Amino acid sequence: MGDRYQELFSHRAQQMKASDIRELLKLVQQHDIISFAGGLPNPQAFPNEEIKKIAVDVLENDAFAALQYGPTEGIKPLRQKIAERMAKKGINCEDMEVLVVTGSQQALDLVAKVFLNRKDIVIASAPSYLAGLSAFLSYEGKVEQTPMDSQGVLTDVLRERIHAIHRHGGNIKFIYALPTFHNPAGVTMPEKRRKEMLDIAKDYDLLIVEDDPYSELRYVGNDIKPIKAFDDEGRVIYTSTFSKILTPGLRVGWVIADPEITRKLTIAKQATDLCTSTFNQYIAYEYMARGYIDKHIPKIKELYGRKMKIMLDALKKYFPKAVKWTEPEGGMFLWCSLPDAGKTDTREILKEALVQKVAFVPGNGFYVDGSGKNCMRLNFTHPRDEDIPVGVKRLAKVIEEELAKAKEYKFLDTAPIGV
Amino acid sequence: MGDRYQELFSHRAQQMKASDIRELLKLVQQHDIISFAGGLPNPQAFPNEEIKKIAVDVLENDAFAALQYGPTEGIKPLRQKIAERMAKKGINCEDMEVLVVTGSQQALDLVAKVFLNRKDIVIASAPSYLAGLSAFLSYEGKVEQTPMDSQGVLTDVLRERIHAIHRHGGNIKFIYALPTFHNPAGVTMPEKRRKEMLDIAKDYDLLIVEDDPYSELRYVGNDIKPIKAFDDEGRVIYTSTFSKILTPGLRVGWVIADPEITRKLTIAKQATDLCTSTFNQYIAYEYMARGYIDKHIPKIKELYGRKMKIMLDALKKYFPKAVKWTEPEGGMFLWCSLPDAGKTDTREILKEALVQKVAFVPGNGFYVDGSGKNCMRLNFTHPRDEDIPVGVKRLAKVIEEELAKAKEYKFLDTAPIGV
Repeated sequence: MGDRYQELFSHRAQQMKASDIRELLKLVQQHDIISFAGGLPNPQAFPNEEIKKIAVDVLENDAFAALQYGPTEGIKPLRQKIAERMAKKGINCEDMEVLVVTGSQQALDLVAKVFLNRKDIVIASAPSYLAGLSAFLSYEGKVEQTPMDSQGVLTDVLRERIHAIHRHGGNIKFIYALPTFHNPAGVTMPEKRRKEMLDIAKDYDLLIVEDDPYSELRYVGNDIKPIKAFDDEGRVIYTSTFSKILTPGLRVGWVIADPEITRKLTIAKQATDLCTSTFNQYIAYEYMARGYIDKHIPKIKELYGRKMKIMLDALKKYFPKAVKWTEPEGGMFLWCSLPDAGKTDTREILKEALVQKVAFVPGNGFYVDGSGKNCMRLNFTHPRDEDIPVGVKRLAKVIEEELAKAKEYKFLDTAPIGV
Repeated sequence: MGDRYQELFSHRAQQMKASDIRELLKLVQQHDIISFAGGLPNPQAFPNEEIKKIAVDVLENDAFAALQYGPTEGIKPLRQKIAERMAKKGINCEDMEVLVVTGSQQALDLVAKVFLNRKDIVIASAPSYLAGLSAFLSYEGKVEQTPMDSQGVLTDVLRERIHAIHRHGGNIKFIYALPTFHNPAGVTMPEKRRKEMLDIAKDYDLLIVEDDPYSELRYVGNDIKPIKAFDDEGRVIYTSTFSKILTPGLRVGWVIADPEITRKLTIAKQATDLCTSTFNQYIAYEYMARGYIDKHIPKIKELYGRKMKIMLDALKKYFPKAVKWTEPEGGMFLWCSLPDAGKTDTREILKEALVQKVAFVPGNGFYVDGSGKNCMRLNFTHPRDEDIPVGVKRLAKVIEEELAKAKEYKFLDTAPIGV
């Protein structure tokens, strides 16, 4: 049939592109490269022994139920445990507001499926989580990105932007927010901005999709409540995951939303994968019920907090002064901005970096409009401690050589991330 | 926000309805009912001990990889094993044509996402798998159903129907086929009809989506090659699953298609759930690599074959002569047609059946046009041996009483399933 498929594909499929990050990851696996690319937790942070104990017990005591199909909304004990844990974060919800999903990526896919018509608009931060944007675009939604500074989305600009879109007749469905330890920017919104974002959502009658995979992983400073904790109108759809506090290989996450929304997401999920792996839900449940989770998370935080410090120290030591970066208080990523000489392109820099055996993700992919070419995302959770300074030093050298080529730098003067 | 969500939902979400079967299952679980409803494998058929052995070994030897994110297309060793096993069915494929999915339901969702624009047409059998239809409808596709007899889809009628739709300008994307141990009808297409269906697809330049979850579970007669085995043009997208030959609780299935299609499905899957549970993929791989699969499937077949015979014997003994049913050679279901008195409605009969403590799925849900009201699907794999005759006897009594109310029966004269 040859070329024929292209015309058979749906409009949404015709515009789908492979993810840079995923393609890059494949490349990185093949070489002896120090990788700050990818978004992988460190396998040293996996509670293997606990999972083994749980798996054996589940298969000895509950195999009939744990290996069978389960309810689409998730097994009841897990939904209860999640609701209990969320209460500690200030989110008061009933079990029926909790939907178990196949990783929080599925939450983003289902939200897009259930809310987005063609050309409906999603407001996202600039930059924003790549696979989130892909999920929205895959339902032919439009993404409009608004700028951030070191405290996350600039709420005054956000309000102006939304106002302007409204005035021009654009149909905004929701704001996609990553308020805590933002991927890729590494920044966190203070409580004041969270409340302001919620106020804007109220004023323009919008939903907020709050993506919160990292908030349990704080290494510095004090916890800030999720936006959902301030939501008294069922306006926030909250999603999180076990990927970073247990393991990603189980693919178990959750959504908390108004019961009417949860019910609709559940029906959509039914036609999508019937249910999330029951076996893995049992593992996640026992991980919580046995209290392993609260013994284990401090170990992850110790490991990642140390790695973050090593990276920040190395950046300070080796990176050219003209490069700026964010200083995260948790999570997995930080964001570097190179001076914009008009021709800085971190995709080009990556080619030389790979020759020098160090990898990162070019910033460009986190924008829908082609900007971010002077930026890069660095992951600090996956590389080995001793590799971090070596990799940063290699990268510093590559950047220096690149900058030396440019005659003069034009620094960004609009809300640059990392300044 | 109250009623407001309804207008915020996308067009596709506004038309989504909860599945009867799922709602029913919840009801059935709450009561002391003999259930022929649902589509559950029997937990007695789960290889718990083998899974336990594998899980422990994987967590001892491969935990770092097995608990991490994996490639979207699936782990390579599993894709290879699947390709090898498919070769025995006459499907010759490279690893790169194999995509691992989160149960074959995800395959149907991804196919719909990648191929269906609004109002694009899918040709399906009447009746057809409920959650398959839901997947197609959830992307605003249109489903046109064509009749079957005891040998599956009537290919001459199929050809006429496609011809008529073409003439009226309808845009057909694919034929959705369940050629082996059809759900819900329980019938199997002979090789001749399979080839005829493929010829029709060639003549009208269509794809075929071949859904094959049950073909390893044959209790009577000889294997028939899948349609994909005759496909020399990359026209067939084949999907199957570990749900019925290992366990459903792992949510691991696969797709085999032309590499261009597999690549597009992979990109779509990336934005949907990133990857299928790596841990569960390792379990499925070891289940194959250790040869457990070939020792275990005969046990499942013995168990289910016996249950099928018990049900067929009981139907013959207890059911009114006016009721017809299919005689499957494998799989999990059979299909009963009651005489159509113009007012027969198995949804109504179900209410009385539940009072009498027996459950089935009303036929109506397997059609998009409201027909099938005189039909019911019976599952024979999940109930206990000794409950099957008791349940059939109860159901027979309910049906008899219902039929006695009607003065005269109008028997179906068009290609009735079960005659």
